[in-house]
Amino acid sequence: MAATNFADRLLAAVEEKKSPLVVGLDPSHAQLPPEIIGKDAFSDEDDAEAAVDAILEFCTKVLKIVAPHVAGVKINSAFFEQYYWDGVEAFSAVVQEAHAHGLLVINDAKRADIGNTSERYALATLADPDFAGMDDLVGPDAVTVNPYMGGDSLSPFIQTAKEFNKGVFVLVRTSNPGAAEIQDQVLANGSPLYVHVGKLVEQWGAELVGARGYSSVGAVVGATNPEQLAKLREALPQTIFLVPGYGAQGGTAADIANAFKADKTGAIINASRSIIYAYKDAKYAGTDWEKAIEQAVIAAKGELAGAIGL
Amino acid sequence: MAATNFADRLLAAVEEKKSPLVVGLDPSHAQLPPEIIGKDAFSDEDDAEAAVDAILEFCTKVLKIVAPHVAGVKINSAFFEQYYWDGVEAFSAVVQEAHAHGLLVINDAKRADIGNTSERYALATLADPDFAGMDDLVGPDAVTVNPYMGGDSLSPFIQTAKEFNKGVFVLVRTSNPGAAEIQDQVLANGSPLYVHVGKLVEQWGAELVGARGYSSVGAVVGATNPEQLAKLREALPQTIFLVPGYGAQGGTAADIANAFKADKTGAIINASRSIIYAYKDAKYAGTDWEKAIEQAVIAAKGELAGAIGL
Repeated sequence: MAATNFADRLLAAVEEKKSPLVVGLDPSHAQLPPEIIGKDAFSDEDDAEAAVDAILEFCTKVLKIVAPHVAGVKINSAFFEQYYWDGVEAFSAVVQEAHAHGLLVINDAKRADIGNTSERYALATLADPDFAGMDDLVGPDAVTVNPYMGGDSLSPFIQTAKEFNKGVFVLVRTSNPGAAEIQDQVLANGSPLYVHVGKLVEQWGAELVGARGYSSVGAVVGATNPEQLAKLREALPQTIFLVPGYGAQGGTAADIANAFKADKTGAIINASRSIIYAYKDAKYAGTDWEKAIEQAVIAAKGELAGAIGL
Repeated sequence: MAATNFADRLLAAVEEKKSPLVVGLDPSHAQLPPEIIGKDAFSDEDDAEAAVDAILEFCTKVLKIVAPHVAGVKINSAFFEQYYWDGVEAFSAVVQEAHAHGLLVINDAKRADIGNTSERYALATLADPDFAGMDDLVGPDAVTVNPYMGGDSLSPFIQTAKEFNKGVFVLVRTSNPGAAEIQDQVLANGSPLYVHVGKLVEQWGAELVGARGYSSVGAVVGATNPEQLAKLREALPQTIFLVPGYGAQGGTAADIANAFKADKTGAIINASRSIIYAYKDAKYAGTDWEKAIEQAVIAAKGELAGAIGL
């Protein structure tokens, strides 16, 4: 188990790498480079084992390329779960590989249930495994969770985070268009639901505040509306924001600057497809796929540093 | 793939069994009867394979006992996921076993993410597997989903339900105390959030209405507040309610009558611990564990039939 508070570890990683960037691993077999899925052992997407092996090969290479430039990775659980048990085993292998590179790992699993059940989800998605033969495996450093069922549904994740010095990121305002249907609903007090949820997150995180003044209970806040970002940054001083939507989903580096405080702390920024599939971008036509990913991650890091003034 | 609309299949199952009861499988190794976990092969809860084998043995026996008395089962994914890949494989085995008994299966997984990712979750949690060597496996008949991210996050589940004649149950008002922090928030129009979500569910389900006038997109509505149940029943005529909270969570059969229309259709009622762990109840002291479960499921079925007037 980690020796120090997750929020402190995350801030230290951002400072060490001089990068608030987190790369999202959403590996889709059909999108992998021909150099991988062209190999016989990896080509058959209808064979779960072959598809998972291809994804593992890809993630292993991506992790090595991005490690010097990012604070961590966000691994999207669904892209592994779609391959059933083979995928779940591969998910754990990618977590181990990321840790071998010193990267923090966020499990983007978006779980929650009643408390009794959330305890099991916290074991499955966040804790270090405690079974015979799995002693050498560690779990992710943090997990994303969904607040719709309220604080008691998230408490087991927060208690697990406390026990293992790990973290939790609660969905507050997500970056998809449909989020407005629920999260932007205006309450009787004149404030949208997501602001109410954000304030609850700040309360839920009070018992996990680290030496740097941030809690290990963070918030997912999309990059697609810079005004929302700025308002939430003001309202939630102890909460680290995990900001998706940068790159492929349309958020710009300038929009994202609003997620940070004046001292340039307070957020990590996720980019997924714009980096891991950079070789599909016309900008990198003719570039080796690994070089394309390297150039894309360095470019994104530089763009963010410029916008934030790092 | 099933030949007919899920809502129609569900209504037919309730009528055939004369029972709107669904048994929830939340199998916890420590709670299993001594007759199972006392066996050497099943006793070590720190061995994921042994624990999973014990759970499979238990679920296989429970399914056989409850099958004549219930329309279906609700399998709680977290209780399998906690055992990583072994658990995920066992989950699928329990689904096959339930289908062998002619039971409908609801995967209580409470998933949702942005659309691109929800497509993968819909494959993992609802679709029939389409991989080599898995052709004989079928997926669950329905899955529970979380509405916080809005309609576009649920659309892939609804499309998958449409493709396979399966169903989706959207969390509307859950039965845990913390639900009030989010779901009961009053909107500017004077109505609580859960009513707004319920109305969206009725809209989202419009394209999956079957011959009986109900949609394959249902709603999870807890049994712990009979007034809420009655209001929602009135407001959502095409929506089947999946009602948890009966039994161990404190909802009574009389409370639950409000989930049904005058024609006695419109809801299925879940009971989990009060049935699968009946042998731990003082009422069944000295009774064989399988007999205790049988008596409990028959009692619950009778109690519900009495309250509803079946």
